[in-house]
Amino acid sequence: MASVAEQIRNKNAEFIEAFKRKDGVAVAAMYSTSAKVMPPGAETVEGKSKIQAFWESVFRAGITDAKLDTIEVDLIGGYTAIETGKFVMYANKDVADRGKYLVVWRNEDGQWKLHRDVWNSSMAKMATVGA
Amino acid sequence: MASVAEQIRNKNAEFIEAFKRKDGVAVAAMYSTSAKVMPPGAETVEGKSKIQAFWESVFRAGITDAKLDTIEVDLIGGYTAIETGKFVMYANKDVADRGKYLVVWRNEDGQWKLHRDVWNSSMAKMATVGA
Repeated sequence: MASVAEQIRNKNAEFIEAFKRKDGVAVAAMYSTSAKVMPPGAETVEGKSKIQAFWESVFRAGITDAKLDTIEVDLIGGYTAIETGKFVMYANKDVADRGKYLVVWRNEDGQWKLHRDVWNSSMAKMATVGA
Repeated sequence: MASVAEQIRNKNAEFIEAFKRKDGVAVAAMYSTSAKVMPPGAETVEGKSKIQAFWESVFRAGITDAKLDTIEVDLIGGYTAIETGKFVMYANKDVADRGKYLVVWRNEDGQWKLHRDVWNSSMAKMATVGA
């Protein structure tokens, strides 16, 4: 059985694959039933259909690819894992934004799901996307 | 005994009092021994002395007051609480920034300490402070 950190990394790879396909349905399906996305430059987004719409707005804004680099995964109490990491978002070959994220993962029916998802830019001037 | 949510709210009140006094030492003392602050527009800040310097840079940038409004507190596994909420930062009477935050609190020696602290602006144009 893969460690929790490996399971999370695999989920992130799956997330990026869906992201590159601009597949909002598949991205939203990776979130928990009561997930919240907390994007820079916009209010908190709750519920799968709104989360799907949010990511679709990011794709429409011209974001084509992303990289996620996990720094740490803390398993707490068996069903919760807190991940921090760094991200890069690309608009074709250009870096649109570069920053850090914190994801609270929740295990639902044996699957790790993004439950709280918050990030911000580490660049001095922020690129607001999807707002 | 106060509920965990009440204990966290009390800690936030203490945080804001230290913040208004521009007391970087007192603010930094509220963080855990291995805390990370993840501010918008800058890299992750680790360790109490760097966290103190970070908040002092925010005070020097002209931020004079803040409000924290807890939305939820989830206690997980006894020693970890995940709080989400909304914040406002003020430069005298002006709103310098308005957004949302997620804090992972860790109980160290019976005291709740900020362990991971991440926030971003909900305003379409971000106010970068303290970078």
